[in-house]
Amino acid sequence: MFDLTSYLARRQAQINTALENTLKADSRNAQLIQAMNYSLMAGGKRLRPILCLAATEAVDGDPEHSVTAACALEMIHTYSLMHDDLPAMDDDDLRRGKPTCHVAFDEATAILTGDALLTMAFHILANGFLNERTGRMEDLEVIRTIAEAAGYHGMIEGQMRDMLSEGKQLTIEELKALHALKTGALIEASIRVGAILGNGSTGQIDQLENYAGHIGLAFQVRDDILNVEGDPNVMGKSVGTDHDRQKNTFPALLGLRESKRFAEELVKDALQSLNEFDNKADPLRAIARYIIERKK
Amino acid sequence: MFDLTSYLARRQAQINTALENTLKADSRNAQLIQAMNYSLMAGGKRLRPILCLAATEAVDGDPEHSVTAACALEMIHTYSLMHDDLPAMDDDDLRRGKPTCHVAFDEATAILTGDALLTMAFHILANGFLNERTGRMEDLEVIRTIAEAAGYHGMIEGQMRDMLSEGKQLTIEELKALHALKTGALIEASIRVGAILGNGSTGQIDQLENYAGHIGLAFQVRDDILNVEGDPNVMGKSVGTDHDRQKNTFPALLGLRESKRFAEELVKDALQSLNEFDNKADPLRAIARYIIERKK
Repeated sequence: MFDLTSYLARRQAQINTALENTLKADSRNAQLIQAMNYSLMAGGKRLRPILCLAATEAVDGDPEHSVTAACALEMIHTYSLMHDDLPAMDDDDLRRGKPTCHVAFDEATAILTGDALLTMAFHILANGFLNERTGRMEDLEVIRTIAEAAGYHGMIEGQMRDMLSEGKQLTIEELKALHALKTGALIEASIRVGAILGNGSTGQIDQLENYAGHIGLAFQVRDDILNVEGDPNVMGKSVGTDHDRQKNTFPALLGLRESKRFAEELVKDALQSLNEFDNKADPLRAIARYIIERKK
Repeated sequence: MFDLTSYLARRQAQINTALENTLKADSRNAQLIQAMNYSLMAGGKRLRPILCLAATEAVDGDPEHSVTAACALEMIHTYSLMHDDLPAMDDDDLRRGKPTCHVAFDEATAILTGDALLTMAFHILANGFLNERTGRMEDLEVIRTIAEAAGYHGMIEGQMRDMLSEGKQLTIEELKALHALKTGALIEASIRVGAILGNGSTGQIDQLENYAGHIGLAFQVRDDILNVEGDPNVMGKSVGTDHDRQKNTFPALLGLRESKRFAEELVKDALQSLNEFDNKADPLRAIARYIIERKK
């Protein structure tokens, strides 16, 4: 029987070590590095980097080859949280159980540190490929995939739509499209990049992307549910905030019970996309179930 | 005799067309694209992209090969101005003669649009290389060079130091180091990338980087001088702001006269770095002189 808890702990440790080594390499600017470290090492779930490594495993590749890409994905995810938390955006004071970067430091530092993490993601990707390989199309494909998912065709467009839709009533299709961009795009990129770096076939990559599309949405539905009925002490962040801000959420549109049913259906579809994979995809299977069972 | 005015006009038109084509390709999000266009097409000097193309020319390469990289450099430059102009940073209302992005739109849009331009720079780089080539070490080297110069080893670190040093007295060496990061790093990267994409030799790249280091600093000295004695109507932005903010500037540390002498010396050194180049480096020579003669 596959033990997800120990798998996640092992992968988190691997990613945390790699992130620490990347940031430790330089200490020219105390405040910038300090703020980068503060936000990056605040103890996130590391979902995106773990999905990346697990996708490499699923196609029988060596996850060591995707550790750098996994770190880049976590840097991009962290920067996006930092900027979303800013007073001009969601104005959140608490993240991962700690004061947000602009509270712990200041607003200018949070803006610059976010910029630095985003830029660093592409730096470590290019640098890693240059150090390890001889320049392959796949390397550029990895960089393109991540940049596209993180950019104005993906995550940023999702955040923009989220912001513009506060106080407005979206349809369920509009809400799905919003989250496919805001959360889904980077989760799909994590899986795709892991599969590319594991030398997966085109067919495998397609099936894994299908898996990713479903768990990405399930993840957001679960997030919305936790914002209604989660325990703030377990989650390390405030609850009830979506309602206060008149945010469009799945519970608000579908009700809590129907939202839970929807999330379960998404996970069932995600698991079906993995039908042709052997037990090397067990981590991905367990993660899909974890996503709708998690308490934080 | 080389005619710089018509050269700059021709190159600006080339870059503007390429930037317009890149942004026109998609119109999914009205507000994000609108703000990206607003800031990117506000009529900047296009110094960095032009230096990139001119460096390709100087090593006898085809500037068509560096147009995408040139656009990426301008996107990064523009994003950095947008974020620096934010209320939490320099709080500037006017840029390139127009209201800054957070004034014309709002703060959240300016943050996200800056993020989008930075991300798009890496997207068009990877995309361009994938469309045109077969995956070379040089492609990754270009991406690494730009990411390093734009990141926490370069431009962002420079902005951070600039911010932290307001109201404090820097030495001339500290001020030079600050600007080598804040302005110099991306100017050097522009030249280096242009030379790499033109297949310049290691020796040529070294000499061009030496040129770039000198004109980058000269550019900043001239900027400081214009902030003292420039015409706001010609410049399209306010003057006297450095003094009001107790910024460390070359005129404040050296005096106006000595600052002008220093800028001239830097340009003389820059021109010497080009001694071994033929007339294909004439645009770079003319740009060096233009940098200390410009009125905006």
